[in-house]
Amino acid sequence: MERVPILKIGDILLVSIQIDMEDQVALQLQEDLADRIVATGCHGVIIDISALDIVDSFVGRTLATIAAISKVLDADTVVVGMRPAVAITLVELGLSLPGIRTALNVELGMDLLARERGEDDDEPDDEDEDEPGASAVATS
Amino acid sequence: MERVPILKIGDILLVSIQIDMEDQVALQLQEDLADRIVATGCHGVIIDISALDIVDSFVGRTLATIAAISKVLDADTVVVGMRPAVAITLVELGLSLPGIRTALNVELGMDLLARERGEDDDEPDDEDEDEPGASAVATS
Repeated sequence: MERVPILKIGDILLVSIQIDMEDQVALQLQEDLADRIVATGCHGVIIDISALDIVDSFVGRTLATIAAISKVLDADTVVVGMRPAVAITLVELGLSLPGIRTALNVELGMDLLARERGEDDDEPDDEDEDEPGASAVATS
Repeated sequence: MERVPILKIGDILLVSIQIDMEDQVALQLQEDLADRIVATGCHGVIIDISALDIVDSFVGRTLATIAAISKVLDADTVVVGMRPAVAITLVELGLSLPGIRTALNVELGMDLLARERGEDDDEPDDEDEDEPGASAVATS
């Protein structure tokens, strides 16, 4: 059976879906990904679908399930690389991928994950030191 | 026709090969990758083959061609994720992938590329500022 490889890059697991999402492939991917999240302690999952011509309701449901499983395991999921035609078809079909965040490409997905993770931690950010206090209204 | 997606991550282009490397797919990948290297100015290419059960002489030649094209375009190539069984079969077949560098996974591949790139640049590194002057000659 074909398996979708899961690549670890820093704190992120990257999955590039290129093969048809049949039942068994989807179930195996969910299981592999959950195992890898637990094994690596990664906090982000990026799923690249730039190779997919079609995202039907089954694929949409699979992505939503993966996002939900990851969430329970304390990892955020972002779907990246959706083709314009796929987005149009999805909306025409009445599928809006509820519960799934998207970004245009892997880099923007990484940025999104880093931002969300930064907001989750309530620690003040060292990099903000050259900004004046937020309440000082504008600069003028 | 199926196409292998190319993902840009920082200064690196990541290709995860999951489909059978037929002639047309291989040619298209070489062309797409060359275009992306030129368009992005990336200096590293990582090819993940963890999904491949078999690396035959055609795939080996394709990888070598990609590495050679990338080199001409000033990008280094690392092949990552080779399965142990694939490595054994390759050597038994007398294929040793000449001209191709390998690493165990994407992260180690990125490290390798960063190291090589660091050695290629002969410019002094800004980060070294807390080291004493290499030989007082320079500055003034």
